[in-house]
Amino acid sequence: MFTKLRYLTSGESHGKGLLGILDGIPAGLEISEREIRLELARRQRGYGRGARMKIETDFAEIWGGVRHGKTIGAPIGLLLKNKDWDNWQNKMDIKPNKKPGKKVTLPRPGHADLAGMQKYDFDDIRNVLERSSARETAMRVALGSVCKKLLHDIGIKIGSHVTQIYKVRSDLELDYYSCPESISENADNSPVRCLDLDKEKDMIKVIDKAKSDGDSVGGVFEVIVSGLPYGLGSHVQWDKKLHSRIAQSMMSVNAFKGIEVGSGFSQAEKFGSEVHDEIGFDGMKFTRSSNNCGGMEGGMSNGQPLIIKSVMKPIPTLIKPLKSVDFFSKEKKLAHKERTDSCAVPAASIVAESMVCFVIVDAVLEKFGGDTMDQLKSHIKISGKY
Amino acid sequence: MFTKLRYLTSGESHGKGLLGILDGIPAGLEISEREIRLELARRQRGYGRGARMKIETDFAEIWGGVRHGKTIGAPIGLLLKNKDWDNWQNKMDIKPNKKPGKKVTLPRPGHADLAGMQKYDFDDIRNVLERSSARETAMRVALGSVCKKLLHDIGIKIGSHVTQIYKVRSDLELDYYSCPESISENADNSPVRCLDLDKEKDMIKVIDKAKSDGDSVGGVFEVIVSGLPYGLGSHVQWDKKLHSRIAQSMMSVNAFKGIEVGSGFSQAEKFGSEVHDEIGFDGMKFTRSSNNCGGMEGGMSNGQPLIIKSVMKPIPTLIKPLKSVDFFSKEKKLAHKERTDSCAVPAASIVAESMVCFVIVDAVLEKFGGDTMDQLKSHIKISGKY
Amino acid sequence: MFTKLRYLTSGESHGKGLLGILDGIPAGLEISEREIRLELARRQRGYGRGARMKIETDFAEIWGGVRHGKTIGAPIGLLLKNKDWDNWQNKMDIKPNKKPGKKVTLPRPGHADLAGMQKYDFDDIRNVLERSSARETAMRVALGSVCKKLLHDIGIKIGSHVTQIYKVRSDLELDYYSCPESISENADNSPVRCLDLDKEKDMIKVIDKAKSDGDSVGGVFEVIVSGLPYGLGSHVQWDKKLHSRIAQSMMSVNAFKGIEVGSGFSQAEKFGSEVHDEIGFDGMKFTRSSNNCGGMEGGMSNGQPLIIKSVMKPIPTLIKPLKSVDFFSKEKKLAHKERTDSCAVPAASIVAESMVCFVIVDAVLEKFGGDTMDQLKSHIKISGKY
Amino acid sequence: MFTKLRYLTSGESHGKGLLGILDGIPAGLEISEREIRLELARRQRGYGRGARMKIETDFAEIWGGVRHGKTIGAPIGLLLKNKDWDNWQNKMDIKPNKKPGKKVTLPRPGHADLAGMQKYDFDDIRNVLERSSARETAMRVALGSVCKKLLHDIGIKIGSHVTQIYKVRSDLELDYYSCPESISENADNSPVRCLDLDKEKDMIKVIDKAKSDGDSVGGVFEVIVSGLPYGLGSHVQWDKKLHSRIAQSMMSVNAFKGIEVGSGFSQAEKFGSEVHDEIGFDGMKFTRSSNNCGGMEGGMSNGQPLIIKSVMKPIPTLIKPLKSVDFFSKEKKLAHKERTDSCAVPAASIVAESMVCFVIVDAVLEKFGGDTMDQLKSHIKISGKY
Repeated sequence: MFTKLRYLTSGESHGKGLLGILDGIPAGLEISEREIRLELARRQRGYGRGARMKIETDFAEIWGGVRHGKTIGAPIGLLLKNKDWDNWQNKMDIKPNKKPGKKVTLPRPGHADLAGMQKYDFDDIRNVLERSSARETAMRVALGSVCKKLLHDIGIKIGSHVTQIYKVRSDLELDYYSCPESISENADNSPVRCLDLDKEKDMIKVIDKAKSDGDSVGGVFEVIVSGLPYGLGSHVQWDKKLHSRIAQSMMSVNAFKGIEVGSGFSQAEKFGSEVHDEIGFDGMKFTRSSNNCGGMEGGMSNGQPLIIKSVMKPIPTLIKPLKSVDFFSKEKKLAHKERTDSCAVPAASIVAESMVCFVIVDAVLEKFGGDTMDQLKSHIKISGKY
Repeated sequence: MFTKLRYLTSGESHGKGLLGILDGIPAGLEISEREIRLELARRQRGYGRGARMKIETDFAEIWGGVRHGKTIGAPIGLLLKNKDWDNWQNKMDIKPNKKPGKKVTLPRPGHADLAGMQKYDFDDIRNVLERSSARETAMRVALGSVCKKLLHDIGIKIGSHVTQIYKVRSDLELDYYSCPESISENADNSPVRCLDLDKEKDMIKVIDKAKSDGDSVGGVFEVIVSGLPYGLGSHVQWDKKLHSRIAQSMMSVNAFKGIEVGSGFSQAEKFGSEVHDEIGFDGMKFTRSSNNCGGMEGGMSNGQPLIIKSVMKPIPTLIKPLKSVDFFSKEKKLAHKERTDSCAVPAASIVAESMVCFVIVDAVLEKFGGDTMDQLKSHIKISGKY
Repeated sequence: MFTKLRYLTSGESHGKGLLGILDGIPAGLEISEREIRLELARRQRGYGRGARMKIETDFAEIWGGVRHGKTIGAPIGLLLKNKDWDNWQNKMDIKPNKKPGKKVTLPRPGHADLAGMQKYDFDDIRNVLERSSARETAMRVALGSVCKKLLHDIGIKIGSHVTQIYKVRSDLELDYYSCPESISENADNSPVRCLDLDKEKDMIKVIDKAKSDGDSVGGVFEVIVSGLPYGLGSHVQWDKKLHSRIAQSMMSVNAFKGIEVGSGFSQAEKFGSEVHDEIGFDGMKFTRSSNNCGGMEGGMSNGQPLIIKSVMKPIPTLIKPLKSVDFFSKEKKLAHKERTDSCAVPAASIVAESMVCFVIVDAVLEKFGGDTMDQLKSHIKISGKY
Repeated sequence: MFTKLRYLTSGESHGKGLLGILDGIPAGLEISEREIRLELARRQRGYGRGARMKIETDFAEIWGGVRHGKTIGAPIGLLLKNKDWDNWQNKMDIKPNKKPGKKVTLPRPGHADLAGMQKYDFDDIRNVLERSSARETAMRVALGSVCKKLLHDIGIKIGSHVTQIYKVRSDLELDYYSCPESISENADNSPVRCLDLDKEKDMIKVIDKAKSDGDSVGGVFEVIVSGLPYGLGSHVQWDKKLHSRIAQSMMSVNAFKGIEVGSGFSQAEKFGSEVHDEIGFDGMKFTRSSNNCGGMEGGMSNGQPLIIKSVMKPIPTLIKPLKSVDFFSKEKKLAHKERTDSCAVPAASIVAESMVCFVIVDAVLEKFGGDTMDQLKSHIKISGKY
């Protein structure tokens, strides 16, 4: 459920470019194309990316909603041009095309291809894959970076890091009370965005192995948010629960196949008396002995850091392709290859930050209102409990 | 994201009762109070429930949207009376009350209590706990049972079973191609809704242990849906992805702390070539060598059974209560006790079925349209690919 | 567009009763069944009502969201029982009924009958007319009265009066700066809710004439809202415009066939220099020379009173029935008669107040946020410009 | 209420350009930039437009959602560049600007200016006026033209014409059963889009008069839709009524101050027996003696042509400016002038067509579903009653 924030994206992977519109950001937020570019660059890095990431240095132009360095309350419009458009003009021509080139008819396991062909009665899988491509998440990160900036300005910090790639799992005990932005900064210094330097090496090794085998690996990452007041989201109606809204947003990425809040699935393995975070008081504020609930109880933020884990499946486009069947002839073949990465988990963790930012901004605006950043800050000052 | 189906519930755990309105069901669906009652009864069973489940045999009265045994396209209104209202009239009086009784001021770890008090500036935790109670899920099951009936009538079957309670995990290899309704029927015969008879005993033992310790246990369950056409949900916009919509719905239950689609988190531990479900053709239709993706690719159903796992945390109300602090005096105390169960995982799996049903019905209506069941069926016949 | 407030109703005209759920009201609003009843009573009055209004004195029971006289942030659930249910149990039985009684097959011009039969493939117009009946607006008034109370408590006053019935039009120059609640109070003292005592008599006469002829009359009414801050709604996106939101809400009543904001259609007859409300300053605040724009410019409230007019068509159920054709036999007949009023314009003006209240409350909560009435008031104090 | 169709626009009047995203159009719709341009050109014509319309020949580039001449189910992204951007780069710079130029501080009566300044705490009215400008409706027409094409392809025709400018009102009796596209074609041949050639001359005269006086005039126009099946929209819930949805959409244009369905406000002046459209049968289908209800009964289309009237106020930017007060100094001044038209009613009627198209497409997709145009057509063939 989104109440005050909305966004839509448009555009195909190899089309002219991506458009994005973000509606609902208050006036008076300082934002620049440079800040957006920095987040886009974070998404493009990461060990295991293929050739494409090198050609593009993504740059989103602001076309609406910002004037003289500040938002004006109007919807923010971004444009992210495809620098390779010249090479794709014919294949992706918007006009009827007499020489449209070879159709893609071999569906790739793990992709939208087969379901998309059946749903839309297409004769060319390109009509599916161009939109279902992970390329679209670049625009989400661009729009999300505006939300991230807003949160930063009201003292809500967000960070992420990779905890597992293939079977290599970091057991590092993270201090969830440290600043998420520092966590992210440290992670950004690692080619796999892993804070555990020992495991970093092993992660790189499995990526190399996957690459040399024409294979791919997935992994697990964690998003942490601190500085939240009590009571974002609500227990009062099913779709107002904060963890539901985060799950909706996070799982909207094709490759994400699971999400955990706090200690997640491992809560099944403990008694209630071991799981629930006991309440204390330190003279100033309520404290907790632990944060197994991941900062959310009863569908509301509870003043503790949010902890959200998600899993990305291995990229389904493989150099060593999977078995498939031609959509029309039913002939057995090996699946269609596009350019591909062997691991995109570090990038996925950046996308995940954006997916969480959208929800938090929405929940903040829902709770506090305010048409400008100053109004929002004043309302938080009065009504925000920490 | 919900496009065509909406529902709201109202009412507190010990208030007069619960109201629910489900808007968007086509005309001509045969539905009866009896069918709804059967689902409510399934939710009330399960080893480990406390006293309350025994007093109530839930019965939802239909107040709107049904005439002469069939829906009439109008919103369906249900009423679920609290049979114990006489004993609660004073505490829950809607009028200002001169003797309102003792206020609850000790927040329970794991509940909405502390966050709710901070959010709404209450002086009595009862104002939070009455609405955040799991009691509200009874109405969800009542409304969900209407959706389940609709799905049944168009050949979509849904079932669930419990795979883990505490550390007792069933390793039974389920045949996901067997009928989910049969799976559910078998599960319903088990006091813990577990299909693995060996593990059933161990599960009962840990529940007994938890009970005798005044403690609680959680667990994991699985929802399976078969009979889906290709292309429910879509890859074209972030909030249309079917797995995102299921995640939103499923995680809207307070106690659910994680969700997995298909093989979920374990996908991180495998190479791409091991995970993705290769495509074949059996002369009639496309086939898959496996179903790791849980029936969804690119945010769409892909003709395979949906497989969704979720985890329920141990119930946070314990007879052996957790440490807490009085909200006002800040005095250290042991948390407030309400009547409680020691395990509600079997019930949770029934609630989960409903949460999935809402999404599937919405996605079916979004894709096929139709103002009546007959129209819907005709549209599916023409445009539904299986 | 509604951002923070939602409501659904359920129930048929002669069913067990009506259910309503209003979601989004902050905690701490003082509300009672008595206050709701007073608004329901206002809706039931008015010269020209038939027998039905006499049997029922509507009383909505609060089933959720209110405790000890105040809202608790939870959705407000209301139940409005049909006192005549005993007489309708058979015709409206929710179970399959072996003696369902005579089917209604003659569609009434001006009603949902013909379109509803075609849309839903029914064999009995009763399946349409029971839900499309104006009876449903009783629940809207009940839910709307909660919104009205909220607005009252933050200094926003709403009122209405009837300006025209049939050709009898009041030319009274209303002082739009007088308190809308006083306007309403005066209107309530008139059997036709008209402030113009001369015209009141003529209105009563035309109603009598319509009644004696078995005919019906419609009319025009006006809703006025004062005390609004600047900037409810917004110019930034099409669906945020306040006048669009009011139009959506107001025109959601079947019988309302037009709406005007401010001087409405008559603005076409003037030059721009005559229409637009010039801006002055009185030493304290900006002033206007006139209020032709009806308190909204650029889709926002502009600190002036809102003025909204709407037209109700004559009630289409006539004692002297209209020509129609049997839905199945195609035989020409005179349309089906239900119990009917000859004029319901006074009641319509009360319903209209509610329809405006929903929008204003939503726009206030969108702009100012706040989980409690106190928080809302504090935010308005800081950020509300008047 | 929109269920399946969504759109957002972004961009300021003198910024880089306008972005628009339309989400929900089925796959397989043939659409071209040329078709969009033709609708944009219709919006740009009309007697009484100022200089700006001459510089720009609007051209919307398709950036997403269309490949090889057909939609691919993905959101449609359009870009409409501001050809005059070079001259505005400094004033509208998205970066902080050391020489931002003179601020606009004199609010114009009739515009968003004063309310916008108060709402967003701006120091420059340009931050309001750039987004509240009618320029944004160009993008609505571009997006709406895609919807219009869809409707055309399923046999739903839409047209419009101007019935009144200033006090000059056409009394031409229109045959509402003639093709709306022909009506529009005839209207397009008139500089004021009026079908009444006698009145056309008088309309031109009043526009000339307004222009020479530095004044402006508004007017009334009518949108007609034919070819609709029974049952778009529904009587079952307040926000599903078709006339409510049309009112919401139509009134989302700043300058539109009223709307009427069918015979609208004049229904108040007649007895029920004179207003309601009696039902007959012509051997093939149900017929009506009249169409006072404007094609909608009970919130549903009833197989008759839709008839919707709306009023546009005179443009509030006048060469002969209105009295105002400097926002900061409170000094009395004459309101700020931007380039302006003296009459834009013909253009408004084109915008209105789009606003209706959005609603009709949404209601069609809601009722019939379908992921492709062929699926949609098949569903209509089976379930659509005419």
